[in-house]
Amino acid sequence: MSARIPSLDLVDRVSAGETRAIARMLTRAESGSTEARAALDLIYQRTGRAHVVGITGVPGSGKSTLVAKLAAHLRRSERKVAIVAVDPSSPFSGGSILGDRIRMGELGGDPGVFVRSMATRGALGGLARGTLEAVDILDAAGYDVVIIETVGVGQDEVDIVRASHTTVVVSAPGLGDDIQAIKAGVLEIADIHAVSKGDKPEADKTISDLKGMLGLGVALAGRIVGRLTPVIKTCSPQDQGISELVAAIDEHRDYMKSSGLLEERRQAIRERRMLKAAEQILHEEFEQHREGRMAPLLAELGDGQVSPQSAARRLLAHISMETPQ
Amino acid sequence: MSARIPSLDLVDRVSAGETRAIARMLTRAESGSTEARAALDLIYQRTGRAHVVGITGVPGSGKSTLVAKLAAHLRRSERKVAIVAVDPSSPFSGGSILGDRIRMGELGGDPGVFVRSMATRGALGGLARGTLEAVDILDAAGYDVVIIETVGVGQDEVDIVRASHTTVVVSAPGLGDDIQAIKAGVLEIADIHAVSKGDKPEADKTISDLKGMLGLGVALAGRIVGRLTPVIKTCSPQDQGISELVAAIDEHRDYMKSSGLLEERRQAIRERRMLKAAEQILHEEFEQHREGRMAPLLAELGDGQVSPQSAARRLLAHISMETPQ
Repeated sequence: MSARIPSLDLVDRVSAGETRAIARMLTRAESGSTEARAALDLIYQRTGRAHVVGITGVPGSGKSTLVAKLAAHLRRSERKVAIVAVDPSSPFSGGSILGDRIRMGELGGDPGVFVRSMATRGALGGLARGTLEAVDILDAAGYDVVIIETVGVGQDEVDIVRASHTTVVVSAPGLGDDIQAIKAGVLEIADIHAVSKGDKPEADKTISDLKGMLGLGVALAGRIVGRLTPVIKTCSPQDQGISELVAAIDEHRDYMKSSGLLEERRQAIRERRMLKAAEQILHEEFEQHREGRMAPLLAELGDGQVSPQSAARRLLAHISMETPQ
Repeated sequence: MSARIPSLDLVDRVSAGETRAIARMLTRAESGSTEARAALDLIYQRTGRAHVVGITGVPGSGKSTLVAKLAAHLRRSERKVAIVAVDPSSPFSGGSILGDRIRMGELGGDPGVFVRSMATRGALGGLARGTLEAVDILDAAGYDVVIIETVGVGQDEVDIVRASHTTVVVSAPGLGDDIQAIKAGVLEIADIHAVSKGDKPEADKTISDLKGMLGLGVALAGRIVGRLTPVIKTCSPQDQGISELVAAIDEHRDYMKSSGLLEERRQAIRERRMLKAAEQILHEEFEQHREGRMAPLLAELGDGQVSPQSAARRLLAHISMETPQ
């Protein structure tokens, strides 16, 4: 029990919003230690106050600049803002491949803003889990708005964005059709569309393209049926459209709250997180016992006696025996 | 038992290479019925002969044309060729968003070529599972080479490509940096690089860029340490580089076989398929029992008493009780 006292103290200091404690807890969470897990369970119980805003857009869409501007505008209404920036990374090398980072500029030194950049976790679902645990920590620490910034490509990134209460998809005018096609899966989860680089002549075409897609019912497959998804033209360097974006985010939050949809979405997020965590335990238990009790199953799988599909049921049975009730 | 007789008969007809039986089995496999599962288990026992070649490249890379040419060249050595083309699709709409399909041209009407286009499965991992089961069916049906064609973006697509014995990554000259960055995760799993559109002046730059990356050790994070990954210039309309590509694929297969790496890779594929199948069972069981024995857990999760991470262990315990030994 004594080993948990420092954690408990750390949790209290996180709750009090102490920046150094928050940073330490974030690092500790990434370690994945048993002690960190216990602390994260305590922290989880203190979450639920922050509004989590997911901002996604392909590299080159200008989302990082937009995020910085958005944070600055949110500060005007005295809201504490935390930003969790997610680097996409190769599932193979474990290394980060895109270096697109936030230009802090005017935010630097403001104690009401906290920025955390997430590295990869390598393992399946690890990036999503780590990111959402970071959001928990920042929520418990009293940040009013937690912004998750991510490139909307890849299952992990989509999982992360779906865990936000309000999702903003950033589209830049003039990006190629290939990019747009890849992005199409993310367009559908937008609660708000932001078109960046509004000073470009092609911006109006991007806006009308988006409105056209929304009209074609793409949005109906999205998150709120029947609500018109706003399309907002922004130009971050000129500070244009940012107030409108803040207003749209607040409007969406209020709408979600009053309609009861926020609680629905929260529960869906919790369930997805639970399922992802269960998947990860599955992988960990398998790896841990591959030389032990998984060995006979692996041998049968190896000589083709059992199909992967049938082996999966036996794997689950093996896992279960170790699972505490 | 009598319900299984038609399946057994169908499995025998698939093994005999009957085209109509193969098509029916592919459709039945997609249904996911219990009968189909039993048939797939039987089919699985008859697999292991085909060489599975994954070909991946972003939309616009010219991979579909390359696949058609490759199939035509493989036919010259009397090899039976099956192509499984995977459409990327939104995890949200369940609809297919890219329409990039194989131009069959000279392959049309050749009984030694079988083409199957995979639709989405919606559920987590469903696309990968469905695709690999289709590969099993075509393997059991006696196709010497099964080509999986996929856009290399997204976890599902990466899972599919990793399930091939030889992976060819297609890069087109002149695609934007954004695309290249997104693709970087896939570059690392290449056993062979094909540069398409070799008649373009930028093709040589793409080739030297790739060789530069390989020299920088990107390939070392890949699948075979110490082997030089070939970079092959192709021009499908002019039939250039296709024979070289066939030779490189054959050389890779022979190297994998003689070194024992093929069996290692096969086992890794089986294990990943088992884990994916276990994940899917997890999701299905959860959905099926959410009103029943999952209900108390969901209630606790809902009011924040239990974190998603802790709920995951209890979920696994609930699943296990239903899992047959």
